[in-house]
Amino acid sequence: MQVDLPEVLAEVTAQFERYEKALVSNDVAVLDELFRNDPRTLRYGGGENLYGYQEIMAFRAGRSPIGLGRRTERTLITTYGRDMAVASTLFYRDAMPGKVGRQMQTWVRFPEGWKIVAAHVSVINEPQDKA
Amino acid sequence: MQVDLPEVLAEVTAQFERYEKALVSNDVAVLDELFRNDPRTLRYGGGENLYGYQEIMAFRAGRSPIGLGRRTERTLITTYGRDMAVASTLFYRDAMPGKVGRQMQTWVRFPEGWKIVAAHVSVINEPQDKA
Repeated sequence: MQVDLPEVLAEVTAQFERYEKALVSNDVAVLDELFRNDPRTLRYGGGENLYGYQEIMAFRAGRSPIGLGRRTERTLITTYGRDMAVASTLFYRDAMPGKVGRQMQTWVRFPEGWKIVAAHVSVINEPQDKA
Repeated sequence: MQVDLPEVLAEVTAQFERYEKALVSNDVAVLDELFRNDPRTLRYGGGENLYGYQEIMAFRAGRSPIGLGRRTERTLITTYGRDMAVASTLFYRDAMPGKVGRQMQTWVRFPEGWKIVAAHVSVINEPQDKA
């Protein structure tokens, strides 16, 4: 198991950056492209639990495009072998002072490209040691 | 990319069940064993963000063993190829009425066995459509 092969890390990082850009601009087509179209794809969101690609797409389509801007910190992307990676980042929004968001995604390479197979987003109070 | 090969799914499910049992009984040795000993291992917890195996071990060692019991629902384990998997579950505790916990783990097979390389735990209000 080779961890962080440079060419693999570069590929996943490029897709992660596409996702981030699509998220803050609410580019639903790209967001939908980057999740795997499969009933087993899972997304635990900030306030909802979405099982399968259909539920995820429906959520994206219905989401308000307002207030999605954010800044990220401590982004960590780690690849395992040539076909999988975990991408994690903290994020902050002006509308949530004192709070920190956490986004974690598992990416897998399929014949059609790198796809997110599982994601989990949550927001907590900023831990005191960082306040 | 072969998804949910039965023998791989059985292996990961067995490790997931070991983890769950260790969690509710606060068996720190098993919890520590099941996380990969590496600085890139990441755990976003219910109220803390832990970077690297050392921080995760310190958190386990300092955690109160009281009130860790829980019941799980909608556990979903999906394997990708022979060396990776995502294990996700909802959980409920008597001490958090109206709330649902979400636990998501990415598992990777190393020469020393299956290990969690990334985990994210969060608690939200039970979505209204399930309330």
